[in-house]
Amino acid sequence: MREAYTDQLEQLAERLADMTGMVAEAMENATAALLQADLGLAEQVISGDQKVDDVRSSIEEQAYALLALQAPVATDLRTVLAVIHAAESVERMGDLALHVAKAARRRHPSSALPEDVKPYFTEMGRIAVKLATEAAEVIRQKDVERARNLEDEDDAMDDIHRHLFSVIMDKEWQHGVAAAVDVTLLGRFYERYGDHAVSVAKRTVFVVTGRMPGYGGDDDI
Amino acid sequence: MREAYTDQLEQLAERLADMTGMVAEAMENATAALLQADLGLAEQVISGDQKVDDVRSSIEEQAYALLALQAPVATDLRTVLAVIHAAESVERMGDLALHVAKAARRRHPSSALPEDVKPYFTEMGRIAVKLATEAAEVIRQKDVERARNLEDEDDAMDDIHRHLFSVIMDKEWQHGVAAAVDVTLLGRFYERYGDHAVSVAKRTVFVVTGRMPGYGGDDDI
Repeated sequence: MREAYTDQLEQLAERLADMTGMVAEAMENATAALLQADLGLAEQVISGDQKVDDVRSSIEEQAYALLALQAPVATDLRTVLAVIHAAESVERMGDLALHVAKAARRRHPSSALPEDVKPYFTEMGRIAVKLATEAAEVIRQKDVERARNLEDEDDAMDDIHRHLFSVIMDKEWQHGVAAAVDVTLLGRFYERYGDHAVSVAKRTVFVVTGRMPGYGGDDDI
Repeated sequence: MREAYTDQLEQLAERLADMTGMVAEAMENATAALLQADLGLAEQVISGDQKVDDVRSSIEEQAYALLALQAPVATDLRTVLAVIHAAESVERMGDLALHVAKAARRRHPSSALPEDVKPYFTEMGRIAVKLATEAAEVIRQKDVERARNLEDEDDAMDDIHRHLFSVIMDKEWQHGVAAAVDVTLLGRFYERYGDHAVSVAKRTVFVVTGRMPGYGGDDDI
């Protein structure tokens, strides 16, 4: 009995890690769709989001059933609750990838991004995917050290995000207000995606160490 | 024993409702700070956010203790989990009010808003505060009908938000890119705040009816 229960806990974490991998892939495709104004890829991300939502519902149901039937305590209880919280964050990451894909679709066949900001989004996309991929590994391996590295990566994301604002606000900006609005929102989607990835990793640290690392690192704009 | 436990559940919901009232007040003050470029009021919201975060931590701890010690099942379990989820949303609503206050502070003594968009923010602020106040009442009274009305109010918020975009994107926009960026982000803060209020109310409906109302109504921009 006890063994089956531990298996269920493991399986729950494994499914959460898989779901995190799904939203990493979604953000990778959404970024490519954005940078290359690729409508097919954008559509793929948009239709794929339902799958993420379904996995989240199913994880949540499994977690609820575990709580109701097994009434876990101590670390096991913390694990189940961390999974419930993290699944919510990961679903939100999927939504943010969806928003990026929708922005690409809305401007197609034009690009939603002026050429000179594309390098920023290439880099934010790279970091976003890395953060999600690492968060999935943190969940799989319960690796506290690895979770800490995520915060450094996320700081790099925040730096680019801040710099992006200075580019938009600069007098040299020649792409008009509509492009500025697109770039502002898109920048925010990547930054929030990064925050959620860090939050998922922090929840895992909480389970392993029993202490929640300080919040902070939240979006400040 | 059983009675003390029911009391604890009631108390948990009551504290969540109080916390929701706190973020309603925060958004009311943040909106006033934004519209009147009132630095003192902005500072008050900014320093008050820690209190919201503390209440959330405390609610979460109390919920965890309840799960660990009482191992609730069925409706009681759903209630505790709904409180944990909702507290996260309400904390986020506090963060969004904080962002509005910070934007007001950043542009002080100027206004972050051009005069001609102020009516939109007056209205979005009014709806945001109403949504949060209503969500608090939904929690207190477990009133499913009232929760449904929240969605209509939130639709009104989304309409204003969409209209705001058309104003920014219009060729007549004469306030430049920096103001467009501020207005874009501020509009999004209100819209997200409304989404979270609706999500809190939906969680309450879930507890009462056992069924989660359809998602949707999520931000689409």
